[in-house]
Amino acid sequence: MNIYSIDEPSFVKNLNEEELVQLASDIREFLIESCAVTGGHIGANLGVVELTIALHKYFDSPSDKLIFDVGHQAYIHKILTGRSADFATLRQYKGLCGFPKMRESEHDVWEAGHSSTSLSAAMGFAKARDIKGEKNHVVPIIGDGALTGGMALEALNHIGSDKTNMTIILNDNEMSIAPNVGALHNMLGRMRTNTQYNKFKHGAEGFIERLPQVGTTLRDLADRFKDSTKYMFVDGIFFEELGIKYIGPVDGHNFEDLGAAIKTSKEYDGPVLIHVITKKGKGYHPAEHDKLGIWHGLGPYKIDTGEVLGTKKTESWSAFMSNTVLDRAHQDETIVAMTPAMPVGSKLTKFQNELPERFFDTGIAEQHAVTMAAGLAAAGLKPYLAIYSTFLQRGYDQLLHDVDRQNLNVLLGIDRSGLVGADGETHQGVFDISFIAPLPNITLMMPRDEKEAEMMIDLSFETEGPMAIRYPRGNVQGIDMKEDRKPLKIGSWEVLREGRDAALISYGPTLQTVLEAADSLSKEGIEVRVINARFIKPMDTALLNSLGESGIPVFVIEEAMLTGGLGSMVSTYMNDELYTNKIQRLGIDNEYIEHGDVDLLLRDIGITAENIAHRTKQLTGASYEENANR
Amino acid sequence: MNIYSIDEPSFVKNLNEEELVQLASDIREFLIESCAVTGGHIGANLGVVELTIALHKYFDSPSDKLIFDVGHQAYIHKILTGRSADFATLRQYKGLCGFPKMRESEHDVWEAGHSSTSLSAAMGFAKARDIKGEKNHVVPIIGDGALTGGMALEALNHIGSDKTNMTIILNDNEMSIAPNVGALHNMLGRMRTNTQYNKFKHGAEGFIERLPQVGTTLRDLADRFKDSTKYMFVDGIFFEELGIKYIGPVDGHNFEDLGAAIKTSKEYDGPVLIHVITKKGKGYHPAEHDKLGIWHGLGPYKIDTGEVLGTKKTESWSAFMSNTVLDRAHQDETIVAMTPAMPVGSKLTKFQNELPERFFDTGIAEQHAVTMAAGLAAAGLKPYLAIYSTFLQRGYDQLLHDVDRQNLNVLLGIDRSGLVGADGETHQGVFDISFIAPLPNITLMMPRDEKEAEMMIDLSFETEGPMAIRYPRGNVQGIDMKEDRKPLKIGSWEVLREGRDAALISYGPTLQTVLEAADSLSKEGIEVRVINARFIKPMDTALLNSLGESGIPVFVIEEAMLTGGLGSMVSTYMNDELYTNKIQRLGIDNEYIEHGDVDLLLRDIGITAENIAHRTKQLTGASYEENANR
Repeated sequence: MNIYSIDEPSFVKNLNEEELVQLASDIREFLIESCAVTGGHIGANLGVVELTIALHKYFDSPSDKLIFDVGHQAYIHKILTGRSADFATLRQYKGLCGFPKMRESEHDVWEAGHSSTSLSAAMGFAKARDIKGEKNHVVPIIGDGALTGGMALEALNHIGSDKTNMTIILNDNEMSIAPNVGALHNMLGRMRTNTQYNKFKHGAEGFIERLPQVGTTLRDLADRFKDSTKYMFVDGIFFEELGIKYIGPVDGHNFEDLGAAIKTSKEYDGPVLIHVITKKGKGYHPAEHDKLGIWHGLGPYKIDTGEVLGTKKTESWSAFMSNTVLDRAHQDETIVAMTPAMPVGSKLTKFQNELPERFFDTGIAEQHAVTMAAGLAAAGLKPYLAIYSTFLQRGYDQLLHDVDRQNLNVLLGIDRSGLVGADGETHQGVFDISFIAPLPNITLMMPRDEKEAEMMIDLSFETEGPMAIRYPRGNVQGIDMKEDRKPLKIGSWEVLREGRDAALISYGPTLQTVLEAADSLSKEGIEVRVINARFIKPMDTALLNSLGESGIPVFVIEEAMLTGGLGSMVSTYMNDELYTNKIQRLGIDNEYIEHGDVDLLLRDIGITAENIAHRTKQLTGASYEENANR
Repeated sequence: MNIYSIDEPSFVKNLNEEELVQLASDIREFLIESCAVTGGHIGANLGVVELTIALHKYFDSPSDKLIFDVGHQAYIHKILTGRSADFATLRQYKGLCGFPKMRESEHDVWEAGHSSTSLSAAMGFAKARDIKGEKNHVVPIIGDGALTGGMALEALNHIGSDKTNMTIILNDNEMSIAPNVGALHNMLGRMRTNTQYNKFKHGAEGFIERLPQVGTTLRDLADRFKDSTKYMFVDGIFFEELGIKYIGPVDGHNFEDLGAAIKTSKEYDGPVLIHVITKKGKGYHPAEHDKLGIWHGLGPYKIDTGEVLGTKKTESWSAFMSNTVLDRAHQDETIVAMTPAMPVGSKLTKFQNELPERFFDTGIAEQHAVTMAAGLAAAGLKPYLAIYSTFLQRGYDQLLHDVDRQNLNVLLGIDRSGLVGADGETHQGVFDISFIAPLPNITLMMPRDEKEAEMMIDLSFETEGPMAIRYPRGNVQGIDMKEDRKPLKIGSWEVLREGRDAALISYGPTLQTVLEAADSLSKEGIEVRVINARFIKPMDTALLNSLGESGIPVFVIEEAMLTGGLGSMVSTYMNDELYTNKIQRLGIDNEYIEHGDVDLLLRDIGITAENIAHRTKQLTGASYEENANR
C-alpha cells in the first residue's frame, strides 16, 4: 500500500492476515529506502514491524498507552500514526525526531531516549488510570537489553507486588546495542531454546493424575509436583516469582501468534509479560546479519550492498581514547577497562579482544558500572570507565558517594561530551560539568586535541584520586603525534595566543572556533588572548589572578550548560577575589537542545566565530550599559 | 567478657559455642547501654550480632573483604576490630563514624551510607582479586530492603553471569527501615515460610529413581522432574535462575547454622548467596517489638522502659510538609503522594492510612520512584514525591530526562536538605541545588518557615511544570499559621529587613542566622538589607537589578555547596549584567562535611552570626585588596 496515505492507525484493525503481511513488507521497504538517505536506527525498527502493527491492531492508541522504551524503535509507530511524509527529515534540524515526541502526535504519550524508563512510566499511567476509574490498557514495550537497567528491575519489583493491570511487551532480540550480557540475558536465552516445554504442560498434569496412591507423604509430594508444573513447564519462572504472569515465547514476526498472545493477555487482570522473540534487522540482509552492532544506529548507506556511506578520514575520539588506554594497559597490568553496554560505541572491542580478563561490559547498568569501578580501585587497580556523558547522569550518586567521596583512583572517559547531533535532547552531553564540578575530589578535564588527550590519560594513571576526561563525539584532528610533549600539571591552563584587549577562555573542540574568532578580530586590530582551560576543575587560579590584575575583559565560551559551567566558575571566582574585570559567558542558556546537525545547533546557541567576535567587540568596545548583551 | 579489651577480631576463631553465645550477649548489653546515651542505629545492629561474630570467625578480615551494605549495621564489626572505647563518641563531632570508615580501621575496606552499593563494590574487589591472582574471599552483607535497589539488581545480573567467587550474605530481617514492599520482598517471605521444603529434597530424588520405565517420553519427563527438583525443593530459584548458588534460609541467631552455611559456601567455586534470617532489635524488647520503625535510628533512650528521650516541642518539617499535602489531597483528588522507602522518615504514614489508593511506597528504588512520578503526571495526576536530598542523587537522570525534560507536573519535597548532622558525609543534603539548578524547566524553592512552605505547596499544585521544595531536617518554628497570606509569585524574593550598606541574601533556616548577624551589625551602625531568596531558581532578577543599580556589596550565605549554589548564580548574574557590586559568598567550599552536631558543623563552615557579621564588615569597610577573604 501507499505508506504516505496512512494518517491514523485504526485501519490495521480491518486488515486480514495476508494484508497485514503485505503492510509489513511495504513498511520494511519504506524504512530501508528512507533510512538509506537519512540514516537512523534501522536495525531495531526492522525487528519490530509486525509487533508494532499488532499492537495497533489489538490495542486502541491513544486511549490505550503504548510506551516505547528507549524510543528509537518507534519508527513504525510513527508511520502508522501518520508521519510518513516527515521521514525525509528524520533526526535532522527541525525535522522528525528519532524518538517519540509528544508534540508530534497524540499517540506519543511518553518520550524517551535513555533506556529502562518504560516500566516505571507505565506504572504511573496504570495507577493514574486506576485512581481515575478508567479502563484503558497500558503497554510498555521494552527490550531485553533495557530490562537489565536497574530502574526497570525496580519497576518490575513494584509492578509484581502491586498487581495492577498492565501488558509488558518484552521485545527480545538477543541484542540491544552490542550483544547483551548478564545473567538475565542468559536466562532469556534458556527460555528461547526451551519452547518445546510448552507442549509438555498438559501431559505432565495427566502424568501426575496417574500416580498410584502410595501413602500420604508421596501423595503430598506428587501434589507439590503438580502445583509446580506451571513453573516447570512454563518458561517464565523468573517473572512468575516476581508476581508477573508470563506468556511466551512468541514469534514476533508471526501475526497469528502475536494476536493470540495479546488476546490472552487481555483476559488476565493483573500484570502480564509477553515474551516476544524478534530478529533485529529482519528482512534486510546487511542489518539482519550484523554481528558488530554497526546497524544499530548509523548514517546513510547504499541499499543494494549495505555499504555505509561517508568513510571517516581520521580516527574517532572514542577509538583514540580506548586505544591509548589499551596501549597503557599493555604496559601497566593494573589498568582495566569498563563500559556499560557500549563496547562498540566507545570502541572498546579491541581492548576486549586483547585483554579479555581485564575488560568488563556490565550491560545497561550505569550505577553498577560506576560503583564496580570504585570497588576495583579500592582493591588497588586502575579502572578506566568509558561512559557517555548523558548516561553518566544515571550513575551520579555512585560517582559522588562511592568514587569521589572515597577519593578512589577511577578514570572516567566521558564520551559524547557536548552536543551529539541527531540523537537530540535526550542525549546531549551538556550537563556533566554542572553536576561533576561540585564534587570535592575529582579532576575534570577536556583536551583540545588528541595529543593533549594522551597527556591527560598519562597524568590520570600516574595520579591518585578520581579523574575524568571529557571527549566529544566525532573524530580527532589527525595531528602529528610524534612531537615531544611534557607532562601536564593539574590545574594548568595553556595560553594559545597572546593578546592585550581581552581574554577568551574555552576548552575542547570549541577552542578551534574561538581561535577563528581571534584571527578575524586581529584583522580588525583587536588582539585577544586565547586560553585553553583544559582543566575545568581545578581551574588555573594563577592565570585567573593574572587576568584579574590585568583588568582586561574575560569571555568564556563553552558547549555546555551555562548554569554550573566553566563560565559560571570563572565569573564567580573573579568576584570572590574582588577583581573588577568585565566577565561574559556564552553557552547553553537554560534550554534543552533538540536534534540536528551540530553546526546548525551551535549557530542557534551562538557558538560561531562570527558571534564570538561580535560579542568580544561589544565587550572590549564601549561602556557597560551599551554592551550589556542579554 | 570485657568488651573494651577487644583489640582485633581473630580471638573469636578460638571460641566454642558457649563462649560465642556469651560474647553475643555481652556485645548486646554493651550496645544497648552505649546507644542509650549516644543514640544510633541500635535496631539493625542488635539483629546482626551473631552474624557479624560468625563472619569474623569463618573469614579472615581484612584479607577477606567484609563489605557492609548501607553500613549502619557495622557496630559489632567496629567492636570486634578494637573500637569499643570510641562508642562514647558515636556519630558525634570528631567522634566514631556511624558507618564504616577506612581511616578508622584497616578492617573497613569499603565505606557506605547509601544502600545497595555492596554487590557492585564486591564485584570490583572480586575481579581485582582474580586479576591479581589472589585467593581472598569477598563477602558483601546486604539487607533484603537494599536488595530491591536497582543497582543491587544490576550487580546480581553481572555477578550471576560472571561466575566469580563471592559469598553474598543476604541479611533478611523483613524490615529495613520501614516494612519492606515489593515482589522480591513477597518472594523472600515465601522462602522464609517454606523451610520444610529442604527436608523433601533427597526424598524427591529417590522418588524419581523409583519410577517405572514407561516409554521414552515419560522417562524424559521424569528426568526433567529430577533435574528440576533442585529448583523445586530449594527455595532460591530466583537466585539460581540468575546463576547464583543459594543456601538457606539460615537462622541468623544460631552459630551452628551460620557456621555450617558459611563453610558450605566456601566449598563452592562461584557466587553463593546465603539467606540469613535475622530479627531486627533482637534481645532488646522495645526494639524487637518495634512496629513503627522508630528503633531504626534514633537518639538517646531510657534502657528499662525504652522511652525515647528529648520530646519535640513542634512538628517536624517532614510531618508539616506531608500533612499539608494530605490536607490538599483531601480537596483535590488528583493529588497523590509517593516515597522511596521512607514513609516513616518522611512522615507519610498518615497519608498512607487516609488515602491508601493514592499513596505509593516504591521501596528503596529512587530511580523508579522519580520516573513513576513522571508517568503519573503524564497521565494527568499531581504527584508529590517526598525524597531525601541525598537520595535524590540516585534519581538524577530520571529527574532530568523524564520529569524536567518532559516538563511534567511533579512536585518534589526534598527532605533533609542542608546538613543532617549525625549521619554525616554520606547523607548531607548539600549537592541538590548544584545538580538541579542546571535543569531548564524546574522551579526550585526553600521556605524560611512553615507559612511560606504552605504557600509554596499551594503554588506548586496550581502551577504546571516540575517544582521542588527543599526543607531541612528538624522541626518547624511553630509560628502562628492563622495570619493571612497572599499567593506567591514565581521568582519573587522577599526583603526581610532594609539596609543601605550591604545586601545579605540567603534562604531557608539560614536566614535566622543572617538576621541575627544583621541585628548585631545594626548595633555597630551598619545597616544591611536581608533578602529571602525563597526561589533559588528562577532568581528575582528585578531585585538583583535593583541591587546592581544601587552598587552596594552583596553577600550570599547558604548551607550548601558553593560550587553551583545560589551564591554562584547571583555572582555570575551580576557579572553577566555588567554590574560592579562586590559579591561575596559563604557556604561549603569543596569538601565533604562529616558527622556531628549541626551547630558545630556550621561553626566550622563559618555560618554563624558572628562570622557573617565579620565578613560583612570586611566587605563594607575598606578597599578591595584589604578585604579579599580567601
